Amino acid sequence: MTTNCKAREVVGRIGSKWAIYVISSLDEHTMRFGDLKKTIDGISQRMLTVTLRSLERDGLIRRTVYPVVPPRVEYALTPLGRTLLEVVSTMVHWTDEHMAEIGAAQSAYDSRPEPEPIEQ
Amino acid sequence: MTTNCKAREVVGRIGSKWAIYVISSLDEHTMRFGDLKKTIDGISQRMLTVTLRSLERDGLIRRTVYPVVPPRVEYALTPLGRTLLEVVSTMVHWTDEHMAEIGAAQSAYDSRPEPEPIEQ
Repeated sequence: MTTNCKAREVVGRIGSKWAIYVISSLDEHTMRFGDLKKTIDGISQRMLTVTLRSLERDGLIRRTVYPVVPPRVEYALTPLGRTLLEVVSTMVHWTDEHMAEIGAAQSAYDSRPEPEPIEQ
Repeated sequence: MTTNCKAREVVGRIGSKWAIYVISSLDEHTMRFGDLKKTIDGISQRMLTVTLRSLERDGLIRRTVYPVVPPRVEYALTPLGRTLLEVVSTMVHWTDEHMAEIGAAQSAYDSRPEPEPIEQ
């Protein structure tokens, strides 16, 4: 299983937790910046802006500015972005299914008494 | 589609491009640190160490130290980590399939003449 460097960059962006949250949030309807900010617990204004720009640049979401006063800006998944919902869903499903096992592994790792030997 | 915060952290780690590369590299056989470093183009020693620790802590890879001189350290996917191969494969497959479309979107975005209006 190999993939080139540019593709990996895209996978990395798509796999980021904030990107996943944005994509999931836009599943059913378009949203405004403020709505996304409220929905996505713990995201900063700056991180939301960066995530939205990055997803827009990759063609996964569309940003529409309505020339009203005050300006209204809405975000929606593009058809390309919609094809990603299944991938995101697969990741989230895997995580939900294995979260207990992961949590147990983390606890075991964190409770190891011995210091980690230096690499190599 | 919702998931809790801890699960999202895990998804974010799994989705990181380096984690994906490590998991893919361990698909067929165990590897030593130096082998992984050589296989994964562009990864720094520090980033590989951090990625391996994080995957080990989540129970996705197993680190085995052989008490020989010099010490030999090998990394392998755990059974839990193996279940992730399919998820990673789904992500990589999606990216490969849509890379041209994403590239076109990026070019279009980067060639926009007008400056981006300030958010909200």
